[in-house]
Amino acid sequence: MSESKKNPKENKKKDTDNKRKYNKKSGSGKSANFNKSTAKKTVNKTLQNKNKSGKNPARKYSKPVASKNPIKIIPLGGLGEIGKNITLYEFEGDMFLVDCGMSFPDEDTPGIDIVIPDFTYVLENKDKIKGLVVTHGHEDHIGAIPYLLKNFNLPIYATRLTIGLIEGKLKEHGLLSSATLNVVKPGDTVKLGKFQVEFIHVNHSIPDAVGFAISCGAGTVVHTGDFKIDTTPIDDYVIDLGRFAELGKKGVLALLADSTNAERPGYTASERIVGESFSNLFKKAGRHRIIVATFSSNIHRIQQIIDEAVKCKRKVAVSGRSMLNVVNVASELGYLNVPDNVLIDIEMIKNYEPWQLVIITTGSQGEPLSALHRIAFSEHRQVEIIPGDMFIISATPIPGNEKLVSKVINELMKRGANVIYEKMYDVHVSGHACQEELKLMMNIVKPKYVIPLHGEQKHLMKHSMLASQMGVSEDNVVIAGNGNVIEITNGSIKISETVPAGRILVDGLGVGDVGSIVLRDRKHLSDDGIIIVAVSIDSISREVLAGPDVVSRGFVYVKESETLMNEINDLVSDILERCYIGNIRDWSSIKIKIKDGVSRFLYSKTRRSPMILPIIMEV
Amino acid sequence: MSESKKNPKENKKKDTDNKRKYNKKSGSGKSANFNKSTAKKTVNKTLQNKNKSGKNPARKYSKPVASKNPIKIIPLGGLGEIGKNITLYEFEGDMFLVDCGMSFPDEDTPGIDIVIPDFTYVLENKDKIKGLVVTHGHEDHIGAIPYLLKNFNLPIYATRLTIGLIEGKLKEHGLLSSATLNVVKPGDTVKLGKFQVEFIHVNHSIPDAVGFAISCGAGTVVHTGDFKIDTTPIDDYVIDLGRFAELGKKGVLALLADSTNAERPGYTASERIVGESFSNLFKKAGRHRIIVATFSSNIHRIQQIIDEAVKCKRKVAVSGRSMLNVVNVASELGYLNVPDNVLIDIEMIKNYEPWQLVIITTGSQGEPLSALHRIAFSEHRQVEIIPGDMFIISATPIPGNEKLVSKVINELMKRGANVIYEKMYDVHVSGHACQEELKLMMNIVKPKYVIPLHGEQKHLMKHSMLASQMGVSEDNVVIAGNGNVIEITNGSIKISETVPAGRILVDGLGVGDVGSIVLRDRKHLSDDGIIIVAVSIDSISREVLAGPDVVSRGFVYVKESETLMNEINDLVSDILERCYIGNIRDWSSIKIKIKDGVSRFLYSKTRRSPMILPIIMEV
Repeated sequence: MSESKKNPKENKKKDTDNKRKYNKKSGSGKSANFNKSTAKKTVNKTLQNKNKSGKNPARKYSKPVASKNPIKIIPLGGLGEIGKNITLYEFEGDMFLVDCGMSFPDEDTPGIDIVIPDFTYVLENKDKIKGLVVTHGHEDHIGAIPYLLKNFNLPIYATRLTIGLIEGKLKEHGLLSSATLNVVKPGDTVKLGKFQVEFIHVNHSIPDAVGFAISCGAGTVVHTGDFKIDTTPIDDYVIDLGRFAELGKKGVLALLADSTNAERPGYTASERIVGESFSNLFKKAGRHRIIVATFSSNIHRIQQIIDEAVKCKRKVAVSGRSMLNVVNVASELGYLNVPDNVLIDIEMIKNYEPWQLVIITTGSQGEPLSALHRIAFSEHRQVEIIPGDMFIISATPIPGNEKLVSKVINELMKRGANVIYEKMYDVHVSGHACQEELKLMMNIVKPKYVIPLHGEQKHLMKHSMLASQMGVSEDNVVIAGNGNVIEITNGSIKISETVPAGRILVDGLGVGDVGSIVLRDRKHLSDDGIIIVAVSIDSISREVLAGPDVVSRGFVYVKESETLMNEINDLVSDILERCYIGNIRDWSSIKIKIKDGVSRFLYSKTRRSPMILPIIMEV
Repeated sequence: MSESKKNPKENKKKDTDNKRKYNKKSGSGKSANFNKSTAKKTVNKTLQNKNKSGKNPARKYSKPVASKNPIKIIPLGGLGEIGKNITLYEFEGDMFLVDCGMSFPDEDTPGIDIVIPDFTYVLENKDKIKGLVVTHGHEDHIGAIPYLLKNFNLPIYATRLTIGLIEGKLKEHGLLSSATLNVVKPGDTVKLGKFQVEFIHVNHSIPDAVGFAISCGAGTVVHTGDFKIDTTPIDDYVIDLGRFAELGKKGVLALLADSTNAERPGYTASERIVGESFSNLFKKAGRHRIIVATFSSNIHRIQQIIDEAVKCKRKVAVSGRSMLNVVNVASELGYLNVPDNVLIDIEMIKNYEPWQLVIITTGSQGEPLSALHRIAFSEHRQVEIIPGDMFIISATPIPGNEKLVSKVINELMKRGANVIYEKMYDVHVSGHACQEELKLMMNIVKPKYVIPLHGEQKHLMKHSMLASQMGVSEDNVVIAGNGNVIEITNGSIKISETVPAGRILVDGLGVGDVGSIVLRDRKHLSDDGIIIVAVSIDSISREVLAGPDVVSRGFVYVKESETLMNEINDLVSDILERCYIGNIRDWSSIKIKIKDGVSRFLYSKTRRSPMILPIIMEV
C-alpha cells in the first residue's frame, strides 16, 4: 500500500543516514540498535530477514495458539479524556507500554503547565516492562516521556520522525544521552518479551504515524493509535489497509481504535483539499502578505504552504519556537522538502515587499504567548500588521480554545487584516477517522472484541454504538476507564481489577506538588481574592502590640474602599478585645473567631467570600 | 403577515387583561398607561386611532423630510462582543435607548458575576432621554435594566412577555414599585420626543420579540433586534415581513441588524423541527424517564416538550430556579399552554414510575450550579439518575461553554444515562438569522446604509460582506465600536466622535469596585498562589521581635514542602539581618528587598512566580 512516488528510493538513503545518526548517538544502528534492550535478538532477525529479501519481512505469525492465559490491557490514560494517552500491555508477566502522552490543563487546574499520567503502576512493574512503543510524535502521545524516563529508563521504539521529535524533548530535559532510542520502520516487528509488536503505517496529521499489531500467546490485538484513511496523502503514503485486512483474515482478538471523531458522520477529508484552498487563497492574496498559522507538527500542511509559496515566488519565514524546531527536525530527516533560497530568517522580512512573503506561525489555537497572538496584539518584534495582510488560520479550535481563537481573529480584523478561518474556507481537515472510517477499520480487522480508545466518555460510547452497527455483540465491546485491567482470552473479555491511574500536575519545575488543596485555594483566590489580617500580640500580657493590619489582594480596589477596610479593622479590634476580656488564649480559637467574623461581615456587605487569612505574631 | 390561528382573537382578550394588570400596578392601562412619560399624548392618539379602526394604526409616516440635522446612533454595547446590547438614538436633542443588556464574564474576569454597560454617557444625558424600548426578554437585552434604573428611572416600553420578565428582575432588586412599565403591542407606535418608534413582530428563540422602525426628521431607521425568519413558528405568529417590506418601499435610511449568525450560510431551521425530534425521541424512550435541559427563556421549546409529554401521558416536573420562574410568568401571561394536571412539583416525582415522567431543567450550558449539573454529579435533592434515563440537551454550547457541557454529558453517560445532544439529533435550532435571512432582510428593507449590530468583529465583518453582496456600497456600511457616534443624514454616514462606553463588572453587591488591578491580582493568585511573609520589628531598636512567619496559599502543598518553606524563612531572616546591619530603616525598601529576594529564590527553585506579600508590623 505504500507505493509512494519517492519513498522506495528515499527510504534506502534515509536508512543509511539513520544508521549513521543512531550509531553515533547510542552506539546503535540498524543491527546494533537494540543492544540495550531485551528485544535485541528477535529484532535483529526480523531485520535481517528483511534485508535478505529486500522486502518487508515475512509476516508469518503462527496463528496464535489460544493460550489459557489472558492478555491484559491496562489503559493508564486517554480514556474518559482527550490526551495523556498511555496503555500498558501484559502477557504472562511480560509488559510493554504504548505511548506516553501529556494533556493540557483546563479551568479546573489553574496555573498548571501540563498534566501527565500517574506512573505509580508503571514504576511498580519496572522489572516486567520491556519497552515503550510510540505511535506518532504528537504531544498527547510523547509529551510525558521525559517525566517517565526520569524515573525509569526503558528502551523506546518508534518511527524516525517520531524519534526525532522525542529527541528534541529529551534534549530539553537533559536526558538524551542516557536514553535508548530505536528507529523502527513500518512493516518491521519488535520483540518485547513474549510480545511481538508489528509497526503498521497509518495516516494522521503528522507523518510517520503507525498502529500496531500486538501478538502474544493469547492472540493478536490491533492498536490503531490516532489514524485517518487518506487516499491522497501529501507523501503519497496511504495507510496500510492491506496489512490490517490480512490480520483480520488471520483472526484478531481485539481492536483498540481512536475514538476522537466517533461523533462525526462520514469520512474525514484528505489533507490534499487544504492544498487546493491554499492555492486559491494565495492567488487571491495578490499584492498582500500572507501569514498562515497552523499546528507545528502538521508537516504536510507546512509542506503544502511552502509548495504554494514557491509557486507564487514568495519567500517563507517561520515564527514561533515549536514551528522553527519542527521545520528544522523535519527538514533534516527529509520529511519536509524545502528548495534552496526559499526559507528566510524572520528578521529579514523587512527587506521584502508584502507580495514576496509568506509567514508560517504558531498560535492557531489562540495561545496567549504564541507568535500569532503577539502579532495580533502588536507585541511581535518582527511582524507588524499591514492592512490588507491575509491571515489564514489553518486549524480548528480544540474544545475549550474557541474563545481564545475568536479573540485573535477579532483583533486581527480590527487592525485591518483579512482573516480566513475554517468556517469560511476549507483551510483545515482533521487527522482522525470519522464514523465511516472507524466502521471500515472494524470491517477489515474483524476483531472479536472492541475497546474504544482515545476519547471522552461520549466519544467512547459513540464508538461502541458503531461497533454494534457492525455486528459486534454488546458484550464484546468494553468501555473502560483509566486504570481498568481488561483481561482477554479467546473466550472472554472482562475488567478484572483497577490499578492506580490518574493525573499528575506539572507546574514549573514541580511535578505533583500541586494537588487538590492547592487548586481549591487557587480557585478561591481567583474568585474573590484574599484578605490578610495581621496582628502582633504580647505573648505574656496578651495585649495587642501592633495592628490589626488589613491587607487585601484581588478583592476590591482598596483606594476606593477605605471605609470597608476600616470597618474590617474595627471589627477585628473588637473581636480581639472580646477575646482578651473573655480570656481566650488559644491562638487557633482566636484565628477562627477572626475568620468567621470577617467572613460573615463581608458577605453581608458585599455578597462575596474572599479567603480570610489571620496571622497572629506572638511577640 | 401575522395571520396567526389564535392571535387576532387572543390579542383582544390579552389587551383587556393587560389593562387590568397594569392599571393596578402603575395606575396605567391602555390609555392611562403612559401617563408618567412624555410619550403620553402621542401614544394615546396612536392607540385611539387603532381602536377606532379596529385594525393596526394607519402607518403613514410622512415620507421623512430630509432634515439637515443628522440622526445619531450610539451603540454603547453589543459591538465587538456578544451580549451587553444597548444603543442610544439621538435627534435634535431628543434621545432614547434600545435595550439594556448584560453579558457574562469570561476567563479574563475571574470571580465576576455579570458584566453591564458603562452608563456614564447615558447619565450625562439623562434629561434628553425619553425612554427605553426593549426588543425582547433575553438577559443580553434586559439584564442591566435594574442597574440603570437604580441611577435613572426612565419609562420602559416593551411587549407583554418582555415586560413580565423585566418585572421579575425589578422585583428582585426592589425596584418594581417605582418603575414605569408600558406594554406595547407589535404594530403600535410609541412617541419618544422627536422620535416615533413602531414595534414590529419578529421571530426569535423567545416569544414576543420585536424590531423597531424608528422615524424622525432625518428619516426612518430599522433596528431588527435579535431575529430569525420562522415560517412555521410554534405560535403561528410569523415575523411581519410585510411591514418591513412596506417600510423598504417608503424608503429606509439605515438598517441595524443582528449579526450573531452572519458566519452561517443558509437559513436557520424552524423551531418546529425540534418538536418533531422530541416526538421521535419520546417514543424511543419507552419505559424510561425523560429529562430535557434547555434555555428557560425558550418558551416555545418548553411548550413543545409539554405537548409531547401530554401526548405520551407523562407528567411534567420542572427543576431550576429560572425555569420555574419563566414557566410561571409565561403561563400566567398566556404564552405557555399547560393543560390541568400535567405539571407536578419536583418533590412529587418519587410517586411516579419513570415512564410517567418528563423533567424539564436548566443547565443546558453545563453551568456548575444548575439543576442538570447537580443531577449529573449526584448533588440534586430530588432527581437521582436511573440507568436508562433519557437526557436530551436541547441547546448548543455558547462559545466558551463547550467543555462544561461535555463534562456534564460525559458524567451522565458514566452513570448509565442515554444522552441525546445536538450533534446527534435535531434537538436544537438557533434563534438568529443566518446569511440568507440577513440578505432577505436587506433585500426587503432596502436601506441606504447598513450598520451590523450584535456580534464580535468577525460577525460584523461577515455581515458587512453580505451587505456588499446585496449591492450596498462599501462606503455605506459602517462597522462601529461601542461608544462610536454614528451620524447619518440622507446624504452621508460617518463616525463623528466617541463617547465613554465600556464594561462595568458586577461582583456580588459590588458594581464597578472590581477593576483591572483587582482582576490582574486574581489572575496572578490563581496561576501561582501567594506567599505572605510577616515579621514584627521593634520600631525603635529595629530588632526583629517575632517572625518571619511564612504562610502560603495556592502555591505548594506545604506539608510536603517544609524544606522549601524553611529556606524561604532563612532567606528572609538573612535579608532582615542585612537591612539591620546596613541601617536600612525605610519599611518600603525592606519590603521590596524581601519581595525581590523571595521571588528570585522561588523562581530559580520552582520556575514559578507566586505573589509575594511582605507584612512588617511595627511594635
